[in-house]
Formats: sequence, C-alpha cells, structure tokens
Amino acid sequence: MNSKKPLILVTNDDGVSAPGIRALISVMAELGEVVVVAPDKPQSAMGHAITINSTLYLNKLSKDGDPITEYSCSGTPVDCVKLAVNEILKRKPDLCVSGVNHGSNSSINVIYSGTMSAAVEAGIEGIPAIGFSLLDFDWNADFESIKSFIKKITLETLENKLPEGVVLNVNFPKLKEDEIKGIKVCRQAKAQWVEKFDKRKTPSGKDYYWLSGEFVNQDKGEDTDEWALENGYISVVPVQFDLTAHHTMQQLNNWKWNE
Amino acid sequence: MNSKKPLILVTNDDGVSAPGIRALISVMAELGEVVVVAPDKPQSAMGHAITINSTLYLNKLSKDGDPITEYSCSGTPVDCVKLAVNEILKRKPDLCVSGVNHGSNSSINVIYSGTMSAAVEAGIEGIPAIGFSLLDFDWNADFESIKSFIKKITLETLENKLPEGVVLNVNFPKLKEDEIKGIKVCRQAKAQWVEKFDKRKTPSGKDYYWLSGEFVNQDKGEDTDEWALENGYISVVPVQFDLTAHHTMQQLNNWKWNE
Repeated sequence: MNSKKPLILVTNDDGVSAPGIRALISVMAELGEVVVVAPDKPQSAMGHAITINSTLYLNKLSKDGDPITEYSCSGTPVDCVKLAVNEILKRKPDLCVSGVNHGSNSSINVIYSGTMSAAVEAGIEGIPAIGFSLLDFDWNADFESIKSFIKKITLETLENKLPEGVVLNVNFPKLKEDEIKGIKVCRQAKAQWVEKFDKRKTPSGKDYYWLSGEFVNQDKGEDTDEWALENGYISVVPVQFDLTAHHTMQQLNNWKWNE
Repeated sequence: MNSKKPLILVTNDDGVSAPGIRALISVMAELGEVVVVAPDKPQSAMGHAITINSTLYLNKLSKDGDPITEYSCSGTPVDCVKLAVNEILKRKPDLCVSGVNHGSNSSINVIYSGTMSAAVEAGIEGIPAIGFSLLDFDWNADFESIKSFIKKITLETLENKLPEGVVLNVNFPKLKEDEIKGIKVCRQAKAQWVEKFDKRKTPSGKDYYWLSGEFVNQDKGEDTDEWALENGYISVVPVQFDLTAHHTMQQLNNWKWNE
C-alpha cells in the first residue's frame, strides 16, 4: 500500500439507505477516499444479473465538496460496479467492498447473493474486492460489534495482495464483539436450500406462489464457513470466478464425445 | 440409464417461445419424457437471480394428454427450475437441459447467463444438467445444424455419470453441421467484458445509460472454450458451484488475521 489514500468503492444489495452499508461506509472513511454507488432499492438475491434490456439511471446524493461521494443507481449490484468503474471513478479503485449484507451469504448463498456478485464483478474487472455479510436479517441489526473486524480484514487485504482471480466472502456471526472468537479462512460448505413454495390464490382466484425454503447443511466439515459461524468465528472464504471444475477434466475426457 | 424413459426438464432464459428452446425440446422428445418450464418473457443476463420479494405465476400451456407438458413462468430461469422441481414434477428429473441460448455463454459469460444459472441450480439440487448455447444472437439462428450434437452430448451425459457438483456448459460455433470439427472438453477462458456505456438524455433532459461493451479475450490457451469455438469445435466446460478457491487457502492462512 502506498502512502496515498486508497480509493475505495462501496456498494451493496440492500440499497443505499440500508444500515449495513452506512456502517461499512463509516469504517471505510477511516481508511481511504470513499465513493458509494449502490442500488436505489433492495436488490437482494439478484445474483450476477445485469441490465441489458432496459435503461440505467444514476442519481448523485452527495453535494460537491462533501467528504464522501455518493450515488444511487437504478440497476442491480453488478450494474452499480460497472457504472462506478466506467462512468464515475476517475481511476480504477484500490478496493471494492460490498455490504454489509443484512443476512448470511455463507455456503451456497454466495451464488444467489447480489452483495457477493458485486464483489465478484469487481474481481473480474481486476479490483481487489470483499463482500461482508452479518447473520442477522434485522434492519436494526448490531453493526457496531463488527466494525473493528471489518477494519482489520480490510487492512489485511490492502496490505497483502489477494491471489489473482479471487475475492473474499466474509460472514459475521450474530454475536457481541467480545464474544467473537476470531477470523477463520474456510471453504464454502456443501449446503443448499430445500424449497417450500407457499401457494396462494389472488382475490380473483388465480394461483400464485411465494418462494420460501429451509437451509439444509449436511456438510459437517470443521473447515467450512458454516462450522466457523456456528462456533463463534468470522468466516473468510476465497471465492473464484473461474468456474471450471479442473479436477474433473480428465474424467470427462474419457467420455466418447467424438465416436 | 435404466430402460424407463428418462424424465427431462427443459428450460431457458430467452423465454418459452424462443426458437432455441423449441429446437431443444424437439431433440429431448426423442430421448425421454419432456416437461418444459420456461420464462414467459426474455430473462437474459439474469444470472442466478431468484424472486424473493414478489409473487410467481405458472401458466400451463399444454393440454391434458399432450405428449409434452409445458408451463411458462413469470420468474427467472432459476425460479423455473425451483418451481418445476417442487410444484410440477412428480419426481426428481433424470436430467435438466437449458437453452439453446441465442448467443454465447462461453468464458466469463457463464456467470451472467440465465441459461447456465438454470443448469447450475439443477446441479445444486442434485440433478444432472447441461446448458446449451449457440454463438448466434439471431432469433432465426440455424439450430438444425446442431441437433445431432445436442443428442450426442445428452446421450453421453445420460450414459456416463456427471462428476458430483458439476454441470456442463456447452457452446456451439456458428457453423454448418459438416463444418463442425468435433467436441472438446475445455476450461473457461480468462476473458472479460470491457464496458462502454452509451449515455443519452430522456426527452425531459435527464441522463440515462445503456450498458454495452466489448468482449476481450487475452487468454490464448488452446485448452480454452474460446479457442475451441474459434477453431470450429463445440466446447464443453465442466462448471462447478463450489466457488471456493481451494488452491489459495494456504496463502490466505499466512495472513495475520488474528494478531
């Protein structure tokens, strides 16, 4: 890290006014020059969606001279990163942080998460990136307890160099600061959602569905993010966007593709 | 494969009426019992988005007794898979196929693609899955030329067992059947989109943006999907949904997380 203040892009998926991003902004303001570009409405579970068949709007929320530059964006979290990098920021940021998400993005949730997809998009564009999530869906969740850890993890990431093609998925247990046992590097637990659709009828009698479900974790490995979180640790999972299952190439090459 | 006809779920992201899915349905009808659950409108670039803050509708398009059961769904491609598995199909399907997408889902496009996200969702739910895409955005693209290859790849997948935690991302070059050189198992090329936003003004003078961009591939590896497609081969990439960058765990464990 050079002596110049790092340029830090902050985004999320709960929307620019969510308490989680406000907490993240306050920590980042201690560490660098902060530019916020975040959705103007909740965009949870948008995954890596981008807006290709519709228009995008940016709305500047800060005034000239304000210490922090802030924009809301009509698009998805990934749109926010793309617009920030291409239309707002004068240079490539030194870091992109996303969150703090209201709710877990551990295990398979990383794939559905708008918060993590924003971090992954930054990673694809060559920007070191971290997604932060707290295991508490409450709008009034306690973000104060995790601020010192956010700062520590961010400083470590700025000091060290993230491996190429990797972003960090950080999840915090719902605990008081002094109850948190520490930070653990983990693998993504093999868990999934078992859906239960709630089938209802409209006032005019048409069937419709609400998606709901139960998170089921059969992976009891003590090296997983789920284990860490259940046992009072902050989980840090290195996430890659080369999705190739390299370890299966040999097996697949034995199939009779061209016979 | 047992002697019973396999139950095959067909979906896509271009919408249930797209020529690409009609071609895929016609091939699958030769191989098994087909149930179609696909979006009622285009859902390209929706990534792994799911609908959690809104209602979902299913609309049955086929009549009782029709050889193929078809539904349209108001949600995303991933919603289609979840609704099919939980609300429509009587048992877990033997295979889920998604596509044929009008346009490439090679390289990093796998992350943005609704077509591939539907296949990945099936994979997460333990269903063997394949996403098919043709490198031709034209609505009237030539799907006839690739039908025999779709059948071959599907039969290989039904005969062999896909490795656990893996789905296939299949892309076809825009070539006539007899110009295609064969099928190659590949890794995802390290390429990305370089965005160029088209900034315009509304009639009332407000700025807005259209996302556009240029696909840039710096990865010249002859083991990549991009190389295969440029050289007349069909690319097959094994795609995993454990996003953990396992090879970086040791490096990250050397960071001073808890000091």
